[in-house]
Amino acid sequence: MPPMPSSQSLVRDVAACKQSDRQEKLQQFMAAEGHDTTPRHDVSNVQYYPQAALTEKQRVIVNLDATALVKCIQKSVYTSTETLMAFVTVAIRAQDVTNCLTESCLRDAFARAEELDQYLRQTGEVVGPLHGLPVSVKDHIKVKGLDTSSGYTAWAYKTVANSDALVVSILRKAGAIIYVKTQNPQTLLSLETNNNVFGRTLNPYNRKLTSGGSSGGEGALIACRGSPIGVGTDIGGSVRIPAAHCGLYALKASVARLPHSGLSGSHDGMDAIIGCVGPLARSASDLELFCRVMLDAKPWLSEPPLLEMPWKTDVALGQGLPEKLVIAILYDDGVVAPHPPITQALRRYEAELRKAGHEIILWEPLDHQKGWDLIMKLYFLDGGAEYHEVLCAGGEAPVPQTQWILDQIQDPRPFTVREIFHLNVERETFRARALEHWNATKTSVGRPVDAILCPVAPTLAPPHDTTSWWSYTSHWNLLDLPAVVFPAGQYSATQPLSHDVLLHSPRNNVEEKIARQWDPATYESAPIGLQLVGRRHNEERLLAILKIIEGVVPPDVPGLAMEGGANGVNGHH
Amino acid sequence: MPPMPSSQSLVRDVAACKQSDRQEKLQQFMAAEGHDTTPRHDVSNVQYYPQAALTEKQRVIVNLDATALVKCIQKSVYTSTETLMAFVTVAIRAQDVTNCLTESCLRDAFARAEELDQYLRQTGEVVGPLHGLPVSVKDHIKVKGLDTSSGYTAWAYKTVANSDALVVSILRKAGAIIYVKTQNPQTLLSLETNNNVFGRTLNPYNRKLTSGGSSGGEGALIACRGSPIGVGTDIGGSVRIPAAHCGLYALKASVARLPHSGLSGSHDGMDAIIGCVGPLARSASDLELFCRVMLDAKPWLSEPPLLEMPWKTDVALGQGLPEKLVIAILYDDGVVAPHPPITQALRRYEAELRKAGHEIILWEPLDHQKGWDLIMKLYFLDGGAEYHEVLCAGGEAPVPQTQWILDQIQDPRPFTVREIFHLNVERETFRARALEHWNATKTSVGRPVDAILCPVAPTLAPPHDTTSWWSYTSHWNLLDLPAVVFPAGQYSATQPLSHDVLLHSPRNNVEEKIARQWDPATYESAPIGLQLVGRRHNEERLLAILKIIEGVVPPDVPGLAMEGGANGVNGHH
Repeated sequence: MPPMPSSQSLVRDVAACKQSDRQEKLQQFMAAEGHDTTPRHDVSNVQYYPQAALTEKQRVIVNLDATALVKCIQKSVYTSTETLMAFVTVAIRAQDVTNCLTESCLRDAFARAEELDQYLRQTGEVVGPLHGLPVSVKDHIKVKGLDTSSGYTAWAYKTVANSDALVVSILRKAGAIIYVKTQNPQTLLSLETNNNVFGRTLNPYNRKLTSGGSSGGEGALIACRGSPIGVGTDIGGSVRIPAAHCGLYALKASVARLPHSGLSGSHDGMDAIIGCVGPLARSASDLELFCRVMLDAKPWLSEPPLLEMPWKTDVALGQGLPEKLVIAILYDDGVVAPHPPITQALRRYEAELRKAGHEIILWEPLDHQKGWDLIMKLYFLDGGAEYHEVLCAGGEAPVPQTQWILDQIQDPRPFTVREIFHLNVERETFRARALEHWNATKTSVGRPVDAILCPVAPTLAPPHDTTSWWSYTSHWNLLDLPAVVFPAGQYSATQPLSHDVLLHSPRNNVEEKIARQWDPATYESAPIGLQLVGRRHNEERLLAILKIIEGVVPPDVPGLAMEGGANGVNGHH
Repeated sequence: MPPMPSSQSLVRDVAACKQSDRQEKLQQFMAAEGHDTTPRHDVSNVQYYPQAALTEKQRVIVNLDATALVKCIQKSVYTSTETLMAFVTVAIRAQDVTNCLTESCLRDAFARAEELDQYLRQTGEVVGPLHGLPVSVKDHIKVKGLDTSSGYTAWAYKTVANSDALVVSILRKAGAIIYVKTQNPQTLLSLETNNNVFGRTLNPYNRKLTSGGSSGGEGALIACRGSPIGVGTDIGGSVRIPAAHCGLYALKASVARLPHSGLSGSHDGMDAIIGCVGPLARSASDLELFCRVMLDAKPWLSEPPLLEMPWKTDVALGQGLPEKLVIAILYDDGVVAPHPPITQALRRYEAELRKAGHEIILWEPLDHQKGWDLIMKLYFLDGGAEYHEVLCAGGEAPVPQTQWILDQIQDPRPFTVREIFHLNVERETFRARALEHWNATKTSVGRPVDAILCPVAPTLAPPHDTTSWWSYTSHWNLLDLPAVVFPAGQYSATQPLSHDVLLHSPRNNVEEKIARQWDPATYESAPIGLQLVGRRHNEERLLAILKIIEGVVPPDVPGLAMEGGANGVNGHH
């Protein structure tokens, strides 16, 4: 790969302008404070800081999930305006400490909130199921009137959207208020969030760690309670990784179930592996709410590739589910064993589910290394040419995680038509084997397993620039299976780990590198997330299964200590 | 394009062997006859000949549709064995006069029929909804134990299938009996049926005309009553064209609704335009029956690309359909006007539907030439290289219709990755425009039109080697919309045509060529087919709409004069 020309001063200028514009637009809505309370740079856990200046009522508001919020707004417990104000106040401070935002349209947002409040007051009705709900949106999803630089210097100031992405327009029609856009990494093909326009996004639970990517701005913002629910995208783990690293929920649906048009990004027309828009949120119900709103809008009448598969609310609520589930647990993908806290969390779920009478079997991993090698080729049919061009056009160098993924390309030569056909056949063969593998699972009830419970990544949120194994998430993109991530607690270096989850001797270089990364102190306060994988096109069933699991092992959302009191805040100052 | 090496003697040898094998396998099941009654080569209309030797009962059997047949077999009105015998008798004679068959497995078929009869006698139950139904299958669809030469010399004797295609295995499980395979053209990408292995398939209504392609063996066989229902495939018109040219019904569903695995053919892994398996049959109910059986088998649990969209029988039976339809009629695609009998048939439907109170609007064609140029590129991403290779490997030359399509390639250079991405974007943009176009149709009832009624081709079954405009069918493949073809009578050169359906002055060379082809005598006895196009994934609704239309304009299936008597046979001897 030839070294890319880098015009450092241009890149710096664009970044400075973008960042100062961002600051200026936010500034007018900042709550005046007597003195600067921003935590020092060496304070790792900043999770509670963004809420510190809130009133008691505001604290309650920002700690509600979207489902509860829309109910409260509908019943006039809170106005749209005061709801928005609470989230904006937190979002601005979340930006200060995690660098999670890109664009904003707060003036319009407050105008809309006012309009919605008036409408509700006058008619007693809501405009839609999300009336007054503030929703944040990942940068590369188009929002009319806002720039869509998407992590590229070359695109900054040149990509003001003249229309909304379909997901945004459905949200708006349902009554949601779009108020901020959030950080995504350079190239978008990264499980961390860092670019030369806005810089790096930090994990609010431990700023030495990544918030994940590519929807890492959403992860940090929602974890801080600066947004109740946000819209990300996922082609290899990009909603699930930030959700896991930030203690949230996220859903990657099957391809073409949720609206996907109106996104900017590289590789338009690449359909060997297709990404998905997906929600990041603070409860499983919110994921369901998001999907329901999307599919009730019949998006297939606007976006040709979408499947005409209406949302089955009854199935999502559990209709047709057997009382006793059969869950397969994937403890280790056969390539890179997860770090101890993750294994321990899986064991805890196994034990609790068994105790509740559900059946647990072991999921035999199916060629994760081969799957990774294949999806890497499918991601890079053009050998990375388009990424290089956009970086060149902006005079910018690859950030470390871009360089890492580019280094994974075995052969930078673009594939030929014939090779592409062969790769497509390989993908279909892989999918067929995986389907057979699932159908062949042996259970005591005679039917194959209902879902797979597995890690989201081999590590908790890792230190910046060290992510190096994607297969726990990208594997399900390769197979086009829906996957939901949910919070399973928070790691504390002082927690004892059971002795039998320590690492065995490494099977390969990647595993060795990741095994060496294990050190309790590094991951202090990092959230623990787990992943549940379902059958294709069965998003409703998957969420219903998660609901049953959460009935057995109650959700453990980091930061929820906050709710109903300011103890958390004080405790962390 | 370099001239292809042609080893004429090899090609002739393979053809001779294949054809004599075919004859030998059929021979043992031929009804002995006192004298040779085969029509002379210059007899054009041979439609009734295959039935001439049948008993009265057999004639009734072969003129029933599949829906009626399975009911009769279930009620023991006919046995599976006598049903099969009737169809086999006709099929062998249909082969004699139209050259529609390739492989056969009659011994196994009769053994299975006997087994099914015994099962029904002993248990009083059927094994499935197709108990005892003979079903014919297009050559390139794999049937275990049978060769799959698929119209290529190179593949003859080297492609004995070691498993059934999914569609075949579902048919078998439902009780169907697979007994013959049918002709498809060299390369499969042709709307006529001709190859160097088995030769050319003729239209039983007029042997100077093509039976259509690529499922042209099915078209000829089913029209002759040599099969009640058959399985074809369609990527540009390949079930619809033979259905129209042979007076039958056919359904091209949306991509990935019906099982599609286990087919042989070129371009595995090409997914820019994806083909569909589809039924050819003698009634609309039979199309419904086929889809219901396929989707009740949950094929998505065996074939990963398939959509989990169960068959909605209630919708197919009309549930949710408005009483008064709004149908858009496409009279002319803006490139090639159809021949007068087709326009006249559309006018008749327009008049009758209006009289019955349905609303009719004109469908404005959307860039059919542009659509054709685009789909040609998508068909030939490799510039035709793979076709050339397989032809070379067999030492065979392209048949005329292969040469014709290869001549349509603007640039035989394979596309680059980047160009492929751009073509995919073009396709998606085209689809999005078409969807908008549909949504924007203005009707008096406020909703967009329910379906588009249009020609299947610009001509009735044309003389061999003259097919030259695909867009009336391929346009709907490009847009991935479901389309059903149904019979609308039979042309007779003595029928008067209304004066206003004569051709205007040609707009381009293709239209000029096709306009010049118009001559009443040429198309004597050719069936007239029409096409109804629905919304994506709405196969059930499309069939329900067809049912309403057929309630207004009763189906006019050529050859049905036969039913209940031998007059037709005698009249044509």
